[in-house]
Amino acid sequence: MKRTNYCGEVTSKFLGTRQTLCGWVNSYRDHGGVLFIDLRDRSGICQVVVEPSKPFFNEASTVRNEYVIEVTGTVTKRIEGAVNANMKTGEIELVAEEFKILNTSIPLPFDVEKSRSVTEETRLKYRYLDLRNPKMYANLLLRHRLSQAARRYLDGQGFLEVETPILTRSTPEGARDYLVPSRVHHGEFYALPQSPQMFKQTLMASGIDRYFQLARCFRDEDLRADRQPEHTQIDMEMSFVTINDIHEVVEGLMKTLFATAGEDISVPFPKIPYKEAMSKYGSDKPDLRYDLEMKDVSGVFKNTSFKVFADVLGKGGEVRSLVSQGGAATPRAQVDKLVDLAKKNGAKGLVWFKYKEGKLDSPSAKFFTEQELKDLITHSGAQEGDLILLGSDQFAPLCAFMGALRKELVKNFTPKCKWAFAWITDFPLLEYVPEEDRWDAAHNPFTAAHEEDLDKLETDPGSVRSYQFDLVLNGNELASGSVRNCRRDVQERILALMKHSKEESARRFGMLLNALEAGAPPHGGIGLGLDRITALLAGEESIREVIAFPKTAQAVCPLTDSPNVVDDIQLKELALAIVKE
Amino acid sequence: MKRTNYCGEVTSKFLGTRQTLCGWVNSYRDHGGVLFIDLRDRSGICQVVVEPSKPFFNEASTVRNEYVIEVTGTVTKRIEGAVNANMKTGEIELVAEEFKILNTSIPLPFDVEKSRSVTEETRLKYRYLDLRNPKMYANLLLRHRLSQAARRYLDGQGFLEVETPILTRSTPEGARDYLVPSRVHHGEFYALPQSPQMFKQTLMASGIDRYFQLARCFRDEDLRADRQPEHTQIDMEMSFVTINDIHEVVEGLMKTLFATAGEDISVPFPKIPYKEAMSKYGSDKPDLRYDLEMKDVSGVFKNTSFKVFADVLGKGGEVRSLVSQGGAATPRAQVDKLVDLAKKNGAKGLVWFKYKEGKLDSPSAKFFTEQELKDLITHSGAQEGDLILLGSDQFAPLCAFMGALRKELVKNFTPKCKWAFAWITDFPLLEYVPEEDRWDAAHNPFTAAHEEDLDKLETDPGSVRSYQFDLVLNGNELASGSVRNCRRDVQERILALMKHSKEESARRFGMLLNALEAGAPPHGGIGLGLDRITALLAGEESIREVIAFPKTAQAVCPLTDSPNVVDDIQLKELALAIVKE
Repeated sequence: MKRTNYCGEVTSKFLGTRQTLCGWVNSYRDHGGVLFIDLRDRSGICQVVVEPSKPFFNEASTVRNEYVIEVTGTVTKRIEGAVNANMKTGEIELVAEEFKILNTSIPLPFDVEKSRSVTEETRLKYRYLDLRNPKMYANLLLRHRLSQAARRYLDGQGFLEVETPILTRSTPEGARDYLVPSRVHHGEFYALPQSPQMFKQTLMASGIDRYFQLARCFRDEDLRADRQPEHTQIDMEMSFVTINDIHEVVEGLMKTLFATAGEDISVPFPKIPYKEAMSKYGSDKPDLRYDLEMKDVSGVFKNTSFKVFADVLGKGGEVRSLVSQGGAATPRAQVDKLVDLAKKNGAKGLVWFKYKEGKLDSPSAKFFTEQELKDLITHSGAQEGDLILLGSDQFAPLCAFMGALRKELVKNFTPKCKWAFAWITDFPLLEYVPEEDRWDAAHNPFTAAHEEDLDKLETDPGSVRSYQFDLVLNGNELASGSVRNCRRDVQERILALMKHSKEESARRFGMLLNALEAGAPPHGGIGLGLDRITALLAGEESIREVIAFPKTAQAVCPLTDSPNVVDDIQLKELALAIVKE
Repeated sequence: MKRTNYCGEVTSKFLGTRQTLCGWVNSYRDHGGVLFIDLRDRSGICQVVVEPSKPFFNEASTVRNEYVIEVTGTVTKRIEGAVNANMKTGEIELVAEEFKILNTSIPLPFDVEKSRSVTEETRLKYRYLDLRNPKMYANLLLRHRLSQAARRYLDGQGFLEVETPILTRSTPEGARDYLVPSRVHHGEFYALPQSPQMFKQTLMASGIDRYFQLARCFRDEDLRADRQPEHTQIDMEMSFVTINDIHEVVEGLMKTLFATAGEDISVPFPKIPYKEAMSKYGSDKPDLRYDLEMKDVSGVFKNTSFKVFADVLGKGGEVRSLVSQGGAATPRAQVDKLVDLAKKNGAKGLVWFKYKEGKLDSPSAKFFTEQELKDLITHSGAQEGDLILLGSDQFAPLCAFMGALRKELVKNFTPKCKWAFAWITDFPLLEYVPEEDRWDAAHNPFTAAHEEDLDKLETDPGSVRSYQFDLVLNGNELASGSVRNCRRDVQERILALMKHSKEESARRFGMLLNALEAGAPPHGGIGLGLDRITALLAGEESIREVIAFPKTAQAVCPLTDSPNVVDDIQLKELALAIVKE
């Protein structure tokens, strides 16, 4: 290798040395017959000077942006006035003594430095240019470092990385599977895994004790909200553990990952039961950078003549308040937008008050007694100058729209910290599906029930708490985990509530059920979204910015033009025909 | 976590301490009312003693093999005579003070310790039991360690791990692609990658400079010779490099991997041009643990009256010898088997001589002159007591059967070392395909030609050497790599020789061709088979022994019962129908 250094590393400590650099022409300019080239590689930029006396001056003059060149020269101090203090290499320049064009480039559809402002379709079609943008390289470098740090940490904790199959069987995870037709067994299909769930539990039954994998997971969903057909999960499973053991391992992992990105976080993370999270924040993934909490003010209105509240309270519902600090100054149009937001999230209406000059001001004020308004101030905790929002409904729908309001309100607040983690615990094990008259797993069907709730499994399924837990950060769900059922009989009771027959259970979950009855240890685990964690640490909104070759919202890759048609012979070998529409 | 230690770690340095162990009942026996349990986890076995006075004695007496238990007790010295010097924990036992059955087990289809002797189908169906076998755990542990070591090494060399898509487009690698129908774009398909080749080259055009990935690769082949539908490759690509730079990186990697498995190897590896490998060993993946070389003895027979040789030599063919040291004692039946082997590999016949009591003994001896036989001894290098095998044909077919003979002969030889690596270099760039009257890439279509051969590309394509190289170890091809074309015009000249039209090239390789003309740097790389390397270091014949959940030769997973039929609704969503046969 002729190269002796990366462009961005040639600082003044190399003054007087001879160096060979390789890279791309980021820009070039002719200053009075002297050619200046900003030479770029992944590490940064170095200024190359080609003097007119050099035999290769004419060749060098033909370079255009993105040409690939190799330059050998002496590291020289820039003249005063030409020093660029903003650049790591801003004090020096490489005075060329040898010069070679390694490859040319056609004129490009956009400037590398401006790649992030062109349309997504164009960025992805020319991803090889987009990735030359220093921010995109920084994102991929961060992802690399996080991946290596995760592995080193888990290796140090006694975890074994085990690769599980990509060509496998449909796992019951809720989303659609991608299918792969078998050429050898016509009419049969493999499925790409939505997660390695069944395999990792099987590995616990195999005595592996501690497993991890940076696992590729696949979901054939209608893409929305920044999803990708394939994503990567830091997936793990441990034997002989309680929830707290899993939390400790993950807290250590997060501390390591954040430190890798230069962020210091404190552990352990607070643990918030699901019910508490819902009733305080209206969400099971609350953004805890903000203290704002809902208050139950039902008591204030227990004798109210305001019909809406009276009706809700009469049917066992609640009235809850959210206080926007300093919100009394909010213009009416803004308040109306909040009302609309609540309605879009299921509210029938919203009552609001501005707390001004010692009293509650609102078109609705006339419906309430002086005492009610006074008590509302006390119980909501509002201060002069605040805006009070009141919602009323049954608990679940109330949480939905009040949670949405909270999310909107905090946008104007100053966060009290940069990173707010929490564990959300004690999720319900089962959710009733009225259309199908059956219970379904709230998380996944393998989650264990609280031992003290087990005897209510058949009599009051809705009250059974699970050993599921979510990890949330700044309002994002980063991960979901649980302690699993390790006994076949309990697992089958849960599957029965979900109205899976024994035959169907055996067909869909047979591998796991068989492993459970052959000496499975108590075990549990979690899967963390690597894409999301990387995006958060890279300061990116979308996970597409931290995936080298993502797909569009239509699940298309404009770079490779996939998916695409295939030859008839391929379909014939698979014994498949395309149904014309 | 209640567990304080792994079973296999409780040595006499823990004497007198209280420990909690969790694991599986490997065996149990009642010695005069005292219960002895060999408790197993991934680390090994510890003997647990349950005294009859203990309140949990009756519960403990119900344990059977593979029950999962948790035991707390005091580490105690075994009585003399009960010490087992072959076990790491053989001096101690854990005297139980608390005892808990965590899970039961049904009676199992085979003993964990004997799992490797049951049929493959049964082993794979009950893989969770098979993996409890300590040797299987050792294999997965080794694989884990090799994977981590590979990543650490490459990270240290400035490589970035970048994940490339699994749902992608057909790459032209020779084998069949697994296809994935698109639900969103009916009639279109993704393909699972046979390798990340096009993506890693695109990453070089993206300025990533050094890429690696432990990449899952997929090939829908008729399984033979220990292949799997999916395998893992230590895949890498580097910019601004020559062949020697790639070799150095890989030599360092191999040294690291082998050291991880406790093996010391020396680097650099010898480099043998393809032509030399073929003419000495009859193979481009010679087993260099053995010195045995073919000799060209054509000169000896230049005037021979032996018609077979005379004909071959007259047509530009050769006569080559292989000498089996001490082989003169080989019984006739064995020699006949060698002749059969040669014929099975394309030989029309084989001439052989036993060098005994100063002369060459053979039924064919009468066809040769005294001088020829004397010269043969000299030129073949045979010694008294050896067996000489003579083959004759054109170079390529001659190499094929003489190579097969060499492989057979060395089975009886003593290897001169444990690990014999070599680089095979200077492969031809193109191979002529007479049936299709076109040239095809000997390796892959992206391999660069030797610069000094470039002007013969159209005039004498067969003589153009490529920058391809293989890494061979003990007769196995571990890896194949090359320096790639980095210019679109040269790449298109090669594709034209392969009779790809411009349109077809654009359709199949468009992504890469476009990247090449937009400032691609010189680059090259290699992919190493992780499964094969692990199997070699684990002392296993088959890669199935180092894959957690492999498939059978029919590409079936008996554990998950995949592939399998899917619901009609799934096919309907994909707009696919199964063609009945």
